[in-house]
Amino acid sequence: MPRREAAFLFDLDGTLVDSVYQHVLAWTDALDAEGIELSVWRIHRKVGMSGGLFMNQLLRETGITDIGQERLDRLRRLHDEAYLRHAARVRPLPGARALLAHLTNAGIPWAIATSGRMVTASANLAALGVDPAQYPVVTRDQVKYAKPDPDLFIAGAERLGKEIEDCVVVGDAIWDMLAARRARALGVGLMSGGYGVDELERAGAARVYEDPADLLRHLDEVGGRR
Amino acid sequence: MPRREAAFLFDLDGTLVDSVYQHVLAWTDALDAEGIELSVWRIHRKVGMSGGLFMNQLLRETGITDIGQERLDRLRRLHDEAYLRHAARVRPLPGARALLAHLTNAGIPWAIATSGRMVTASANLAALGVDPAQYPVVTRDQVKYAKPDPDLFIAGAERLGKEIEDCVVVGDAIWDMLAARRARALGVGLMSGGYGVDELERAGAARVYEDPADLLRHLDEVGGRR
Repeated sequence: MPRREAAFLFDLDGTLVDSVYQHVLAWTDALDAEGIELSVWRIHRKVGMSGGLFMNQLLRETGITDIGQERLDRLRRLHDEAYLRHAARVRPLPGARALLAHLTNAGIPWAIATSGRMVTASANLAALGVDPAQYPVVTRDQVKYAKPDPDLFIAGAERLGKEIEDCVVVGDAIWDMLAARRARALGVGLMSGGYGVDELERAGAARVYEDPADLLRHLDEVGGRR
Repeated sequence: MPRREAAFLFDLDGTLVDSVYQHVLAWTDALDAEGIELSVWRIHRKVGMSGGLFMNQLLRETGITDIGQERLDRLRRLHDEAYLRHAARVRPLPGARALLAHLTNAGIPWAIATSGRMVTASANLAALGVDPAQYPVVTRDQVKYAKPDPDLFIAGAERLGKEIEDCVVVGDAIWDMLAARRARALGVGLMSGGYGVDELERAGAARVYEDPADLLRHLDEVGGRR
């Protein structure tokens, strides 16, 4: 039986770029503008999941039963506008560029799979120096269901010509870890989105590292060896 | 031996008002303006501790060895200015007003003890409807060392005429829990500042609740009974 070599599928926000807190406050701005009061930490715990599910869960917590598609679209637009006001300040996380360069140089396939749409992801990809015309990037626009459904990561594996069971999913949110488990990929958590270690481990992370730089130092633990 | 009745000492940011994420991005703004790059989640994990210790720890993580008092003062001023730009949007956390009203009505003494200075705390106290002329509020300005040193909570207990060993310290940060332990108070953690349950428990929280509303529902678990 041939040795099956790992490929890496990366979440974007909080995993490769330092943008989670800006997303959190952008959602806070959007909900405020619509008169929906929700504690900021509850928003933080939902960031990274599908926008639709995110809204459903937030609305459940606020007790609003029916919000309507028009208002949902307005909330998303308000978020995107607020986020893009902050986006100039968004930077790659420490080690993110070095990690991707290392994988590329070692011939280890990698792709990015994000619950965000290209309208907000493109600023982050630019900060990261990843041209989506040159590297495989799957966004929310390309799949029916986003995280914690596994569709984004499965689409990423397909873009690489790999089985999802051979892939390592790297993310900062429990939704990444849950999607990884549902797809039978190996989940690896990063603390750089602000979740705690136990939250990531309980969501199924096989290992948890601080940020991309820390993952790069321990890459051989999770299959990044050639 | 007479029954010793509990008093409550509250942290402010993230415990009674929903202001942690605004503080985090205000520190991010200040550090950016000084050309100091630090991941946002690392700032989040330090918020709530003494400003001086906070700076020392951040600088240790960025590898800067000597920053100088002038630059420290400038960073603090930049933070305060950035925070006050966001402060209009800061709201009490769910249940915060009801919890304080319940304690007052039940004759259970309470005080607020914050690592912040009055310049930023006053906006939060106004949002909370607490007049520092009427209720005991201890700020950074009044003690030599802030959290995780226990001085703020000890000063709060003194203001109430209570022994610190009879006090329940309620906070959202591991620095509140550590200060509580150092003073032999009973630490109670709230998740509303964005820390995870295990981080608070490992820092010594006897119980962890979601937010002030959740604490109010379980108040008899930690001594809030008369």
